Amino acid sequence: MVAINCDMGEAYSIYRCGDDEGIMPYITVANVACGFHAADPVVMRRTVALAHEHSVKVGAHPSFPDRDGFGRRELKMEPGELTAAVVYQVGALTGFLAEHGMPLNHIKPHGALYGLASQDETVARAIAEAADVFDVPLMGMANTMHEKVWGKRGRGFIAEYYTDLDYRADGSLIITREHVAYDPAIAAERSVRAVTERLATSVDGQDIPMRADCVCVHSDTPGAVDLAKSVHDALTPYLA
Amino acid sequence: MVAINCDMGEAYSIYRCGDDEGIMPYITVANVACGFHAADPVVMRRTVALAHEHSVKVGAHPSFPDRDGFGRRELKMEPGELTAAVVYQVGALTGFLAEHGMPLNHIKPHGALYGLASQDETVARAIAEAADVFDVPLMGMANTMHEKVWGKRGRGFIAEYYTDLDYRADGSLIITREHVAYDPAIAAERSVRAVTERLATSVDGQDIPMRADCVCVHSDTPGAVDLAKSVHDALTPYLA
Amino acid sequence: MVAINCDMGEAYSIYRCGDDEGIMPYITVANVACGFHAADPVVMRRTVALAHEHSVKVGAHPSFPDRDGFGRRELKMEPGELTAAVVYQVGALTGFLAEHGMPLNHIKPHGALYGLASQDETVARAIAEAADVFDVPLMGMANTMHEKVWGKRGRGFIAEYYTDLDYRADGSLIITREHVAYDPAIAAERSVRAVTERLATSVDGQDIPMRADCVCVHSDTPGAVDLAKSVHDALTPYLA
Amino acid sequence: MVAINCDMGEAYSIYRCGDDEGIMPYITVANVACGFHAADPVVMRRTVALAHEHSVKVGAHPSFPDRDGFGRRELKMEPGELTAAVVYQVGALTGFLAEHGMPLNHIKPHGALYGLASQDETVARAIAEAADVFDVPLMGMANTMHEKVWGKRGRGFIAEYYTDLDYRADGSLIITREHVAYDPAIAAERSVRAVTERLATSVDGQDIPMRADCVCVHSDTPGAVDLAKSVHDALTPYLA
Repeated sequence: MVAINCDMGEAYSIYRCGDDEGIMPYITVANVACGFHAADPVVMRRTVALAHEHSVKVGAHPSFPDRDGFGRRELKMEPGELTAAVVYQVGALTGFLAEHGMPLNHIKPHGALYGLASQDETVARAIAEAADVFDVPLMGMANTMHEKVWGKRGRGFIAEYYTDLDYRADGSLIITREHVAYDPAIAAERSVRAVTERLATSVDGQDIPMRADCVCVHSDTPGAVDLAKSVHDALTPYLA
Repeated sequence: MVAINCDMGEAYSIYRCGDDEGIMPYITVANVACGFHAADPVVMRRTVALAHEHSVKVGAHPSFPDRDGFGRRELKMEPGELTAAVVYQVGALTGFLAEHGMPLNHIKPHGALYGLASQDETVARAIAEAADVFDVPLMGMANTMHEKVWGKRGRGFIAEYYTDLDYRADGSLIITREHVAYDPAIAAERSVRAVTERLATSVDGQDIPMRADCVCVHSDTPGAVDLAKSVHDALTPYLA
Repeated sequence: MVAINCDMGEAYSIYRCGDDEGIMPYITVANVACGFHAADPVVMRRTVALAHEHSVKVGAHPSFPDRDGFGRRELKMEPGELTAAVVYQVGALTGFLAEHGMPLNHIKPHGALYGLASQDETVARAIAEAADVFDVPLMGMANTMHEKVWGKRGRGFIAEYYTDLDYRADGSLIITREHVAYDPAIAAERSVRAVTERLATSVDGQDIPMRADCVCVHSDTPGAVDLAKSVHDALTPYLA
Repeated sequence: MVAINCDMGEAYSIYRCGDDEGIMPYITVANVACGFHAADPVVMRRTVALAHEHSVKVGAHPSFPDRDGFGRRELKMEPGELTAAVVYQVGALTGFLAEHGMPLNHIKPHGALYGLASQDETVARAIAEAADVFDVPLMGMANTMHEKVWGKRGRGFIAEYYTDLDYRADGSLIITREHVAYDPAIAAERSVRAVTERLATSVDGQDIPMRADCVCVHSDTPGAVDLAKSVHDALTPYLA
């Protein structure tokens, strides 16, 4: 069983980001921005309502406090500061969930916070402290500090496979600042393989082990809706 | 039965504001700042922990988004923007309450938002929409738009009497930017009178009708702790 | 003699707003956002460099501190607070101008601040105090409080005609939140008429007196570049 | 010849920080906060006016964009982002200087930015790029990356000696989050020694070489005014 997740609600003020309306029908779980790297209260409320309309589960997508940098820059926070910042953001999101009687599904850190948590145990633990407050699983990448720290905490760990990004032979993700178009058919085929065979193909063609509790698509890649639809159609038999 | 409330957690970053540790033992309800006019996640977490330690109930103290102006400046927001901003702030606070298994007690708007809600029906309604999400009463001043709008909503309305500020003969509050010292004995005596006789004394010596479901003290007035203690001691027989 | 101006540099973080690169060749003056309603230091620096490359003069486009609301919401600031906020923003812009040895050309308030300044004398004066610091003219609409207050101050007043918006018969501008496409030929023709005959046509077809020291185009209207080019071509004989 | 400098204008909103009015008479150079770690436009304007009144020269005290953390947390910015952020802040300050016809004296980075610049060449260079725009010297610690990078740039380097902090035998500064009281007489004696003999005493009693183009005092240490006065009186013969 697998979920399809996407970062949603990354618009802000008058600015748009990604085609949330177009993508929402093809995902089962939304990671919703909480106002620290993107979104404002109006965007959050609208995004949660859209997810509710499409019966999409909602998780929190908290970030370092860094709207100027879209949460892509590392900030050296004390563990206590970081836990408090995550509790604040996730709590804020639960207010909008309460409007629809929706439970919080999970927490997936954003950007530099996601990256750091995959490598730095102190950061990973500080985030886990916040997840404890809400009693939800954390979402991240398998075979990293994410899984090592979060997998042990007893709240559950949701391993995600990025269907529109490439991996190195060592299993690490090749992160690109500007997401580029990815072939929907290849994404669909690889997603099925990750789910059924627990294997991905590295950028140089090797098989790499891949745990995929959920498959991640992006909303701001060119052709994102087509890719999401293609992945969704292919994964339909396996969706939770 | 009466409660004693105080605005708490209005420190920010390295800055302090009021003697929260000194006041907390003498109040029964804390209105905790939510990061839009004062406080940051660390301050909020510490303030909720302090309230928990003293068995003080916690309400949210949301504001216009205006940290530069400490929430004292009116901002013309659309009703939907305002409701979303209040849900965001209150939701954020509930995250910290969840750490201690504490329920949210009420919502009391801060500063210019409090002032506007006492006069402007659209603003009062936009705040009430947010209170509906959390199913808690709103706190404000009796005989104002606050009470007119919020009293009807079925969530309850907590009328507060300001024990360290003066009132005009028409029942309106004389708000001062810099709180000045107030005689603790007079504050205590007037608090008891408001609670038992439902009367206050105006600045020119007249009796004015006063509903006091709770008595409000400030933490940043000179001599604030002594005043809070004095009021607390005098009201002890009436505390809920 | 006339100038063609456009609000520029309203991108922010990863977000884009308007086609600055496309518009810049067809204007002579840019009103550059200063970080309070849009832009961040990187966007400002890039925008000033782009203006410099096209020999476009740069004015400051300061706002109320309200990035969440794109500066479109009125905020009740004290006059001293407002003057200081404008000096801060304009000063910040002059840093980027200094990199290219460019002088500051003018100040044009943005959004709600522009609107308020056209009606409220205290606001108009508070802005003028800031313009005095930099010794530059202010840009605004003729026959409004803008002109009344700013025209008297001795720094000069640049009256602008909006070529892609409609006017009422009383000369007031019909402001739309979402700018809609406007016929480039009509815009060009009307711009020439405003410059040469000092007349505009109201939305109901009447002639209204119009002073046009500069003609304003928008960068975020559909077809903005074509319209700017059309207006630029028609006004070429009259450009300062 | 030596200057006495102090970080000034670190109040914010309703919050106070240090006794600027008390200290200003005893310093010759003020490093004024620019709104990214502390201060807002009103505070900056007031601080510059206060400096002007006391004939104190003004330098800029820019920071990482981190008001929540008072600029004490490292943020991984691209060099171009950092240069732009510094130009923005310094430019903003020059607006307030322009009101009094005052030149910008220097730039001294704040907090984590100061710390990083003393170790990280890329950061030191990014700051120097901004100083080039304003054609002013940078202030920092001798015998560090500060001096290595900034000393070569041709704008001048102002080495500062901290008179109310201790040094290790290797010449490095012992930075404390909460500044503690320091004996005014010792501070004065050590300041004179640093200026006249170019020597400081390490925390374990050893002589260490010390270049002191200026002596730095803090405004938020207990007894700060007395210490500043004591240092000022002792250094009077050597003041520039």
